[in-house]
Amino acid sequence: MSKVKIFDSTLRDGAQGEGVVFSVEDKLAVAQYLDRLGISYIEGGNPTSNPKDCEFFQRAKELDLKNAKIVSFTSTHKVGADPSKDAMLAAILEANAEYVSVFGKSWDMHVTDILGAMLEQNLGIITSTIRYLTDNGKSVFFDSEHFFDGYKANPQYAMETLKAARDAGAKALVLCDTNGSTFPFEVEEITKKVAEAFPNIEIGIHTHNDTGTAVASAIAAVRSGATLVQGTFGGFGERCGNMDLCTLIPNLQLKLGYECIPPENMELLTDTARAIAESANIGLDPRTPYVGASAFAHKGGMHSDAVIKKPASYEHIAPEVVGNERRVLMSEVAGRSAIMLALKSVDPTIDRNSESTKRILDRLKELEHSGYEFEGAEGSLEMLIKKELGRFTPHFNLGKFSVVVNEPSEGLSCNAMVKIFVDGEEEITAAEGEGPVNALDTALRRALGTFYPELKKMSLIDYKVRVLSSTDGTASKVRVLITSTNGKKTWRTVGVSADIIDASWKALVDSIEYFLTVVR
Amino acid sequence: MSKVKIFDSTLRDGAQGEGVVFSVEDKLAVAQYLDRLGISYIEGGNPTSNPKDCEFFQRAKELDLKNAKIVSFTSTHKVGADPSKDAMLAAILEANAEYVSVFGKSWDMHVTDILGAMLEQNLGIITSTIRYLTDNGKSVFFDSEHFFDGYKANPQYAMETLKAARDAGAKALVLCDTNGSTFPFEVEEITKKVAEAFPNIEIGIHTHNDTGTAVASAIAAVRSGATLVQGTFGGFGERCGNMDLCTLIPNLQLKLGYECIPPENMELLTDTARAIAESANIGLDPRTPYVGASAFAHKGGMHSDAVIKKPASYEHIAPEVVGNERRVLMSEVAGRSAIMLALKSVDPTIDRNSESTKRILDRLKELEHSGYEFEGAEGSLEMLIKKELGRFTPHFNLGKFSVVVNEPSEGLSCNAMVKIFVDGEEEITAAEGEGPVNALDTALRRALGTFYPELKKMSLIDYKVRVLSSTDGTASKVRVLITSTNGKKTWRTVGVSADIIDASWKALVDSIEYFLTVVR
Repeated sequence: MSKVKIFDSTLRDGAQGEGVVFSVEDKLAVAQYLDRLGISYIEGGNPTSNPKDCEFFQRAKELDLKNAKIVSFTSTHKVGADPSKDAMLAAILEANAEYVSVFGKSWDMHVTDILGAMLEQNLGIITSTIRYLTDNGKSVFFDSEHFFDGYKANPQYAMETLKAARDAGAKALVLCDTNGSTFPFEVEEITKKVAEAFPNIEIGIHTHNDTGTAVASAIAAVRSGATLVQGTFGGFGERCGNMDLCTLIPNLQLKLGYECIPPENMELLTDTARAIAESANIGLDPRTPYVGASAFAHKGGMHSDAVIKKPASYEHIAPEVVGNERRVLMSEVAGRSAIMLALKSVDPTIDRNSESTKRILDRLKELEHSGYEFEGAEGSLEMLIKKELGRFTPHFNLGKFSVVVNEPSEGLSCNAMVKIFVDGEEEITAAEGEGPVNALDTALRRALGTFYPELKKMSLIDYKVRVLSSTDGTASKVRVLITSTNGKKTWRTVGVSADIIDASWKALVDSIEYFLTVVR
Repeated sequence: MSKVKIFDSTLRDGAQGEGVVFSVEDKLAVAQYLDRLGISYIEGGNPTSNPKDCEFFQRAKELDLKNAKIVSFTSTHKVGADPSKDAMLAAILEANAEYVSVFGKSWDMHVTDILGAMLEQNLGIITSTIRYLTDNGKSVFFDSEHFFDGYKANPQYAMETLKAARDAGAKALVLCDTNGSTFPFEVEEITKKVAEAFPNIEIGIHTHNDTGTAVASAIAAVRSGATLVQGTFGGFGERCGNMDLCTLIPNLQLKLGYECIPPENMELLTDTARAIAESANIGLDPRTPYVGASAFAHKGGMHSDAVIKKPASYEHIAPEVVGNERRVLMSEVAGRSAIMLALKSVDPTIDRNSESTKRILDRLKELEHSGYEFEGAEGSLEMLIKKELGRFTPHFNLGKFSVVVNEPSEGLSCNAMVKIFVDGEEEITAAEGEGPVNALDTALRRALGTFYPELKKMSLIDYKVRVLSSTDGTASKVRVLITSTNGKKTWRTVGVSADIIDASWKALVDSIEYFLTVVR
């Protein structure tokens, strides 16, 4: 099995993506996730561009990484400068990572129009930057910026920049499609020419997704001789993003016969992708191949029937191989298989054509029309089924609640009062909170705690708000999705209302009832 | 310029995507957007599967479409059935669209294991379904389900299914990569063989994105002889989605020399994609090539400096060609160009190295650390700059506000009281609302209306909530983003707080001050 080395740039090029923000702690955590998965190289950032990256390189040395090497990133030094007096290169030596990526220009137009240099001068700074770093004990990747656009404009010059880098001692030549403008069939052809011209040095590929073909281009390069692939997790990156490693790795390893990471780690892929997306504080697109929440979600009636019968009928790989899972979604076009699965988990004897099955389907459709989505709220779905089957006795009833928000305020701005009844017994409590929902949640748990002390074991771990029809401004409906856990099991519940506090209350009540009825 | 016909399946296969919900009104609106853009075919749905699709086909006849033909969708009829007595085909005739897509099985495993039929029987139902429809005056597309997987397993049989369809009178053979399991280089090779074997009939391609290569595969098929491409807008669709037409169309037409839509309509592409995503009630991924909000957004310092100097340096096409726009984002790695642009719009004389520039940068960093994002909130950024430059006098000051939410309630559950000062004059008002923010917004506008009657011209058109660090449940910070308009200009403002009402208040105040200061 041929090996392909994976070079992750989530912390450097990924951080250029809109909305992507990493703290130093985030960066250290991401490096550990990548190392655990078995990635070969982790590009940590540019130590000259901001103090956060400097701190990362200092603290990264304390990480006990098993598989990955940390790489720093810089450009070629200024034209006419002395590399030993260049502040940027001094920062690279100071950062003290064994590996360094140096990006240099390979497109003649960029040299003359952006750098404002002569073509020969650019070759000179590629040479002297790389030689200075290799002389100082670094292993250097040469990132040939805009290589493909450059090759199309002036193939001879683009090749000369690679030659300068190789002759200066670079360990790899990384061909970058910086603008994401090149199609896979072009990448294939051009990479083949480079691999033929430079047979004794590692060839890398770095693509962007501006034409939606970044993954296909990386595969084309690997089939043409590249053995190092740069990309980011979740495809984060500037504009349309970088090539997504979560898609590339399983493509190469599960379907095309290359080894990128230790095979036994493949099932960590989904966890790794989601943990990194959380660290980036950006949601992973649910449709992300292999690792997205919808990647193995089936909605079409015939499809969901068939996939339950024979998974390979509508799945190109088994989801568990990458640590993901199959989900069968509700919806107006779904057959009954999906709902039957949920129904049977509540009552194994229930019939597909029974009156109660029909009633539950009708109720689901009605709620979906009013804005509910049970696709991501299995807890609320199960509670609904139990109610419709008469298998649910509420653990408490609401008397009333009232929430007051005052501004300006000193300290916590919100107060909530809740009155509940448990077996006819009344309990009334109040609480303060940082926001109205926090105050209400605290008051409700305090009131219930008298009767159900085990509620201490359960906590909320995620709270999402989606504005439904956004054309009416603040009078829109909102859907609140709450994720709760007792440390072992995790469940999600949903509430919909024009009032965000009311929607939150509904999801909270479902979450607590689910815990008391199903989990504890 | 060779023509490629675009066949849109957003309303049929796109509606299978998780979270995608279309009402009949939505479907009619989407059809009109697609027609305006110049799409050739619009697949409207399966009239047998739900009443919504039936209503769509009835009402679609009243649409005065200029370019597009409406297509209905069905499967082959049951084994052993008489097509003239088949309820599904009766519904297709009833729906009365001139064009029909018929999907049939081309993968031997699917025939035997999912359909439970013999291979010969499957050829029989392909023939009789298509013949029945063509005899009834329909033009039929044959969707060869799982064609590529089928071809890999049993090439001879897969080809026989196409032959059966052609001989029964199908007008086009559409090769479907239903599971999204096939790579572009395989699609290229197999499509070439099909095009050679079936020279006198139109060949179509239908791909899914499970390996992240759907667009590349569609391009490969076109280069091998396909002249009809199926996909969806925004790439909506089951699992990882269908091939995204917003990416494919400009790829083929702007970069590869094919004509898909009338050239003068290309600048409607971004509008069309966003309008359809709104109708689907799903956000368009900002990183979507060509049409996403980030597709031409530049964050890296060197990149944003260069792109302002020479757009082609970091953009593969000019954003205005597809109706999109360039955006230069703020961030800790950005150079000063982005902020300078915003600063210069407030004060054209300001210097890049001045004290106030530095102070504003520091203040921005501080706010970003506390959870603000100015990337999508140009209104708040401009207000911040004005404040820091001493060029802002508030139009009102808050005395205090208080919001009360009571449940259960009759009618509107929320009340808000607001006290403000304008030039020392006090105004106190109250309002009810459907939710706390709605009540607060109404009360504030009422109080201000006495002093600034022109506020009537401004309204909120979007309200978004993002929970920031979602590990603390309901005590997380929230970021509220508000979009406002006066019908001509649209502006966005942001507020951050642990309390959703306080965050909303901040964004509301910025929005109103922006209107009073900049817009009116």
